[in-house]
Amino acid sequence: MEKAAAFERIRDIVGPSGVVAGADQQKYLVDERRLYQGEAAMIVRPASVADIARVMAVCHEARIGVVPQGGNTGYCGGATPSSASNQLLLSLERLNRVRELDPVGFTMTVDAGVILSNAQEAAAEAGLLFPLSMGSEGSCQIGGNLSTNAGGLAVLRYGTARELVLGLEVVLPDGRIIDGLSGLRKDNTGLELKSLFMGAEGTLGIITGAVLKLFPAPQSVETAWLAVESPQAACELLGLARQVSGDAVTSFEYISRNSLDLVLAHIDGAEDPLSGDSQHFVLMELSGAAAGAALRDAVEQVFSDGMEAGLISDGVLAESGQQRSALWRLRESIPEAEKHTGGAVKHDVSVRISKIPLYMQQAPGELPSEAAAHLSVYGHIGDGNLHYNLIAPEGCVAAEWRTQWGASLSHAVHALAVRMGGSFSAEHGVGQLKRADLAEFKDPDALSMMRSIKAVLDPHSIMNPGKVL
Amino acid sequence: MEKAAAFERIRDIVGPSGVVAGADQQKYLVDERRLYQGEAAMIVRPASVADIARVMAVCHEARIGVVPQGGNTGYCGGATPSSASNQLLLSLERLNRVRELDPVGFTMTVDAGVILSNAQEAAAEAGLLFPLSMGSEGSCQIGGNLSTNAGGLAVLRYGTARELVLGLEVVLPDGRIIDGLSGLRKDNTGLELKSLFMGAEGTLGIITGAVLKLFPAPQSVETAWLAVESPQAACELLGLARQVSGDAVTSFEYISRNSLDLVLAHIDGAEDPLSGDSQHFVLMELSGAAAGAALRDAVEQVFSDGMEAGLISDGVLAESGQQRSALWRLRESIPEAEKHTGGAVKHDVSVRISKIPLYMQQAPGELPSEAAAHLSVYGHIGDGNLHYNLIAPEGCVAAEWRTQWGASLSHAVHALAVRMGGSFSAEHGVGQLKRADLAEFKDPDALSMMRSIKAVLDPHSIMNPGKVL
Repeated sequence: MEKAAAFERIRDIVGPSGVVAGADQQKYLVDERRLYQGEAAMIVRPASVADIARVMAVCHEARIGVVPQGGNTGYCGGATPSSASNQLLLSLERLNRVRELDPVGFTMTVDAGVILSNAQEAAAEAGLLFPLSMGSEGSCQIGGNLSTNAGGLAVLRYGTARELVLGLEVVLPDGRIIDGLSGLRKDNTGLELKSLFMGAEGTLGIITGAVLKLFPAPQSVETAWLAVESPQAACELLGLARQVSGDAVTSFEYISRNSLDLVLAHIDGAEDPLSGDSQHFVLMELSGAAAGAALRDAVEQVFSDGMEAGLISDGVLAESGQQRSALWRLRESIPEAEKHTGGAVKHDVSVRISKIPLYMQQAPGELPSEAAAHLSVYGHIGDGNLHYNLIAPEGCVAAEWRTQWGASLSHAVHALAVRMGGSFSAEHGVGQLKRADLAEFKDPDALSMMRSIKAVLDPHSIMNPGKVL
Repeated sequence: MEKAAAFERIRDIVGPSGVVAGADQQKYLVDERRLYQGEAAMIVRPASVADIARVMAVCHEARIGVVPQGGNTGYCGGATPSSASNQLLLSLERLNRVRELDPVGFTMTVDAGVILSNAQEAAAEAGLLFPLSMGSEGSCQIGGNLSTNAGGLAVLRYGTARELVLGLEVVLPDGRIIDGLSGLRKDNTGLELKSLFMGAEGTLGIITGAVLKLFPAPQSVETAWLAVESPQAACELLGLARQVSGDAVTSFEYISRNSLDLVLAHIDGAEDPLSGDSQHFVLMELSGAAAGAALRDAVEQVFSDGMEAGLISDGVLAESGQQRSALWRLRESIPEAEKHTGGAVKHDVSVRISKIPLYMQQAPGELPSEAAAHLSVYGHIGDGNLHYNLIAPEGCVAAEWRTQWGASLSHAVHALAVRMGGSFSAEHGVGQLKRADLAEFKDPDALSMMRSIKAVLDPHSIMNPGKVL
């Protein structure tokens, strides 16, 4: 099929309200971090799974590249088209229905375009919890979360996005619909296909719906801001807290003094919860689905055991919802505080939890001294995941810092993680930003397996061209 | 390469102690349920991953079919070779080392041939829990558990085998080794490959090692045997128990009166914990990683709330470890009790939890009345998983019952599950036994995806021929 004719057919399928035109296009074409400005031959927002299937069949036949897009909040440019202006950008935003909630089976079936916070609210209205949670939850969409296997703030207890899914509905590159929405907790009938699409970042097909696992809603929450002696002490405290609390730890976040100071300097109303000059902090949250004082006892036990073991030097326990929010705001405002400095060269590495201290000890030595002197290090160390970010040195224009030095700094940060058996992308994915890292650092046999699978599922290579592989 | 020369080379690689000969062969060639008697051109038990890789490279070149085998405890003949006597049976039994236990990161790295109970014990010695648990744990091997994505008794809280794995080491059909043992909790760098091998039942490669997730060991356990009014009441009680206990429910097993009566009739020392004539029972277990009375309070609350809601009519709470074991023995002896009747036509279906009552209501109507009159129904209803087994009617020889009627009875039981959006194999897999069901019941597009993936990873179709696909 001729391409112009194909785009006409797509226009007919999605109808006038399904095509984004004019000035409305820009927000779809630039990524969250403004690293990429793309172009698209057409931007569509189909209203149904059937329409997406019809659009994909046309694209398959006419060899038109398709870039699926959810809330467009990714950090690696995975949802931004290239500048070639020959691709179709397909937004899932009109597929925004919660299709079903099953309170007996603890499941919820949703369209891919449902905004994460709306999914959380739908569960909460039924007295249940959908635990995926992250800074962008007010605008990211569940389909994007699943495509990138998003992590976030509750991975320690509930797993990454992939582990929260019982079933997927996927439109394949040729327009066939795989309906995997049975929502079974156990189904050992052949190869596990759905996990392939979670983490593929739209390179194998388009996730259009999902059956999500729900959990009893927590009836009690305890939040602590703790000064710890060292990264090593933070890791040991994690083990202690998991044991003492009966595995009630849902979040265990590390914050360096530098990251905290950025927040205190740039975020209105931010206050240091402690008065000392500690260099390392942990924001720990325990959740219990049962009400009562047991969880308070547990967090106090963690605190006193941690003090006694010399791991904790100081700390506060949140006494109110307001205080809890203030503590979380310190953690969640770090990216915004970094922006006030002009922005950082950002990283998302992981190593085994037990190797976190060694990583933090060695990483500065891999960097030029000006870079090592301006770190902002924080992250989900309960998952072995650090955001090891490099702020532009004083007197250096941040944008130049990023463009001139970003690549070589990132290479050093990533290479150390990989040498320690870790990953250069723990939760943000690959997208456009880390394609070269994937080619350099990934086991060549694993890469060749990925390419083979991509080739059979997407023989014309139309799915999200130029991303990941 | 000529096949005879290839087998000679394999003999050289594994050495004399690596070849099983003579009468020792039989136990490898017949399956646990004695449904299949296979033949093998050679049976080997290599001593290392490197030797397995070398063996596979030879098999790949000479086009020799390879049947991987762990503890040989599967229910579907997945580890038994065909009768063609041209295949290599490769036992993992000599790969039986726990390679590493990381108490900070809560992980354990094991060889595939480690027996499940040994893995459990290694974790327990470090004060931790590896939660996978099933009747065959004294002889099944972790590699087989992972290849079949085993379920078992703690899926509700901890997930199936696939969800307990952070990394896999796999030997591909051509002898390449994929080392995925980094043990990272988060690593979003390209397609998720390891999940493909878990559930593939040895048709894509050989799992040789794994990094497993560990958890804090439970410090308190509460076990209850409850008479419930109906399957519907059992399902509602599950939701109530998850909510009231703070999601501490680790096992939630359904047992029908008929299954209990089989145990009481055939198992030495088995005693009915209750005196009434209830038709439906639940064996519920709560676990808390914290010590103390909180869990006892929770189980008592579930009991009193369940009585008040009219879901529970009677019950006992275990007052000692001995009583707990006695209650579990009632549940775990059901397969053995069924054997005393001459054996059953066994099933392993799943539907959404909320559809369990409807399934149990409709299934008898799908069966001839003699079959429907001799049911043994039990299972993990916390996972929507029922073992819907059909005992031979009185006066009918069990072996004839199975051979003459088994296929048509199974078809009826499976077809109903599939019509209700369920699965004909929840946790036992496909193997040889359910290949026809897979071909009949699975979505053709999903099947064709599976075949495409199999074809690229195993281009000469040497991996576990005649199984699954």
